[in-house]
Amino acid sequence: MAMTDLNATHDPGRRSFVESANQPDTDFPIQNLPFGIFRRGQDDARGGVAIGDQVLDLRALCTSGLLSEAAAEAACAASGPRLNDLLALGNRVASALRARLVELLAIASPHRAALSPMLVPAADIMMQLPTEVGNFTDFLTSSYHSTRLRPDSTLAPNFMSMPIAYHSRASSVRLCGEVRRPNVQQRIGDEVTFGPTLEMDYELELGAFVGPGNGLGEPLPLDVAREHVFGLCLLNDWSVRDVQRWENTPLGPFLAKSLSTTISPWVVTEEALRPFRVAAFHRGHEAPPLLPYLSSAVDQAQGGFDIRLEALLRSPAMRDGGEPGVPITDTNFRHMYWTFAQMFTHHMSNGCNLQPGDLLGSGTVSGPTPESRACLAELTARGTKPLTLPNGEIRSWLLDGDEVVFRGRASRPGFVSIGFGECRATVAPAVTWPT
Amino acid sequence: MAMTDLNATHDPGRRSFVESANQPDTDFPIQNLPFGIFRRGQDDARGGVAIGDQVLDLRALCTSGLLSEAAAEAACAASGPRLNDLLALGNRVASALRARLVELLAIASPHRAALSPMLVPAADIMMQLPTEVGNFTDFLTSSYHSTRLRPDSTLAPNFMSMPIAYHSRASSVRLCGEVRRPNVQQRIGDEVTFGPTLEMDYELELGAFVGPGNGLGEPLPLDVAREHVFGLCLLNDWSVRDVQRWENTPLGPFLAKSLSTTISPWVVTEEALRPFRVAAFHRGHEAPPLLPYLSSAVDQAQGGFDIRLEALLRSPAMRDGGEPGVPITDTNFRHMYWTFAQMFTHHMSNGCNLQPGDLLGSGTVSGPTPESRACLAELTARGTKPLTLPNGEIRSWLLDGDEVVFRGRASRPGFVSIGFGECRATVAPAVTWPT
Repeated sequence: MAMTDLNATHDPGRRSFVESANQPDTDFPIQNLPFGIFRRGQDDARGGVAIGDQVLDLRALCTSGLLSEAAAEAACAASGPRLNDLLALGNRVASALRARLVELLAIASPHRAALSPMLVPAADIMMQLPTEVGNFTDFLTSSYHSTRLRPDSTLAPNFMSMPIAYHSRASSVRLCGEVRRPNVQQRIGDEVTFGPTLEMDYELELGAFVGPGNGLGEPLPLDVAREHVFGLCLLNDWSVRDVQRWENTPLGPFLAKSLSTTISPWVVTEEALRPFRVAAFHRGHEAPPLLPYLSSAVDQAQGGFDIRLEALLRSPAMRDGGEPGVPITDTNFRHMYWTFAQMFTHHMSNGCNLQPGDLLGSGTVSGPTPESRACLAELTARGTKPLTLPNGEIRSWLLDGDEVVFRGRASRPGFVSIGFGECRATVAPAVTWPT
Repeated sequence: MAMTDLNATHDPGRRSFVESANQPDTDFPIQNLPFGIFRRGQDDARGGVAIGDQVLDLRALCTSGLLSEAAAEAACAASGPRLNDLLALGNRVASALRARLVELLAIASPHRAALSPMLVPAADIMMQLPTEVGNFTDFLTSSYHSTRLRPDSTLAPNFMSMPIAYHSRASSVRLCGEVRRPNVQQRIGDEVTFGPTLEMDYELELGAFVGPGNGLGEPLPLDVAREHVFGLCLLNDWSVRDVQRWENTPLGPFLAKSLSTTISPWVVTEEALRPFRVAAFHRGHEAPPLLPYLSSAVDQAQGGFDIRLEALLRSPAMRDGGEPGVPITDTNFRHMYWTFAQMFTHHMSNGCNLQPGDLLGSGTVSGPTPESRACLAELTARGTKPLTLPNGEIRSWLLDGDEVVFRGRASRPGFVSIGFGECRATVAPAVTWPT
């Protein structure tokens, strides 16, 4: 299966002439090379590739003469203000650029002088949304999350038969920054009121960006659909629990989710993540057999990812004291019951068309252990058992000024560890209702 | 309240030099003037206005010198392949164009000779989607529909407190044409299988297009939000009942809805529909008081619309016999419990941003009477009491080759009746699952 193969770009011995990319703690060694959109000063927004603490300008590279054929096609498709055109070309075209980039950026690269003017310090740029997100779908694929949040602590009857999902809101997907506490309906006893939510929560997820996608009425089988997973980012599916309880029946979450979704700016490609592929979740003897359209030997053997994911909470008091945040979730993406390939093919199975740049959220990445609970609803048993932070502060739910930071990192002996950068946002106070 | 006022464009005595627009059965008299996107031959797609059996080319009008200021701005914004830019300008700008169009198209218009080359026979064109639908949200706002489809035949506890909705799928919104029967998971007894749905249904709805919309975190109060309802179309929210039952808990409808949504091509403006405004649904004594953010005197007095809506079913046998379809639903939009203004402000209430060209579906427009049931699930009591059609054919659910046609028309004594055109699509057989 070509898509899961390793190649020369994964060689752990490879180093870059960008010194910061060779530090063991960098998220962006030469083995990663994630794509994003950046803007410097008054320049047009354009695609870039992160390498250490620098960003390689793909618009400049496109016209440099240093690329040929597919690699040039990829860089030029990433020269505009969104990556959709690059994603539409498919993983193999992006792979050609990656193969060339590891040569160009290598420590002994003969092109170092030509490339240096195309490298921009990450500290000097603003990141923008990587794609125009035409549609955003959010899944529920951790059995641990699902069980902890069900009233009777059992899995929904359909959970083991299909990756459950709902359409979410694309217009409010944003990069790191701030998220405003929403005004919502709450029911307390028999009384329904409207005002700032009292139960604001984060959900730690990974997002997957769609490559070329499929035509309407033209589903793709699992082993083809998996090639349409272009890359991943960190995703905070902000969740508002009081209105979620009140609105959820009969049609699922609506205002509980559409307030905003925060993603990290760098798209870590499927190819970069291949060394960290693992088997799909072990379904166990009690699970029903997989329906054929959700089953393939390759996906069962390699459909998962071993990616450590952490959430940190930084209160205003910590920020005022110059302290970093405190870890509140430490989990791993290998706990997910369904693979992204299964999510993709299930989503297409009724003929629904996925389009380049569409975003699919994995669902909250909760695992079996207490520290792997990946939202406050789980960590505080729906607010009934508040967290006590190391500085003595108490949290049932997020308060105004709280900053939530996600980090993700994939490691495996014999390979260079790669990271996702940060997904960071601060809760801003609710607006006064306009009149 | 200026937005609900009538003006000279509503004058029932007005006639057009386009003779077909003066026929009593036309959907498109000079009092209507809906917007759409059309393409003729190899020409670029562009905005047009329907008048009788003709379409006025807004790109040609934009550069004609016949318009000034806001009217020119509106026509030029509608010169491209989507109406989003027009909608972003707001209803008052579109209204300026409408005011000028009734002069230009009047029976005694001095500009008849100049306009005639800009009029294209509707028979010679292909219509396209009116907007790039960034996001599509579907509501549930008929108490009759909701009650009939609940297992215990009662309203959900939240129904009278908020317009219930779910995010639906924007990428699969299409104009009239065909809709392919989806392959889906079905649970029969304890067995879960995957194959062509056995329970394909239509839902007769109206869609509302969003005008300028709101910024993220910046909700608009009800009486401002109502000015962001640009116009309406017919909407068929194709629904797949077997998978809907199976997937709906815990996160609501997903593949049951995303297969495709069919809309009619013409956007009938809020201004054209003003003569047919009626009071909001009478909530009765048992309803909880409206929360202030969902309540205004104007919306309660004039937030509804009196629009008759019909669904016809045309089987392959009828088509082969040259017969038109048979009416199976005859309902009215005044039965809806919530107004579009309430849907808009509720949608924005948590800070979610609505964008120009976004689409909101009203939910199935079912009324209290048997003939006003607006989907087969209601008409056949979930398939248990099949319909017998006049030609003896039986339907529990839609069969391959069945064509579903929606029509809508607003009438009131003393005013010229206006229509929506047709929303028409045929069920195509499921694809064989690819391998």
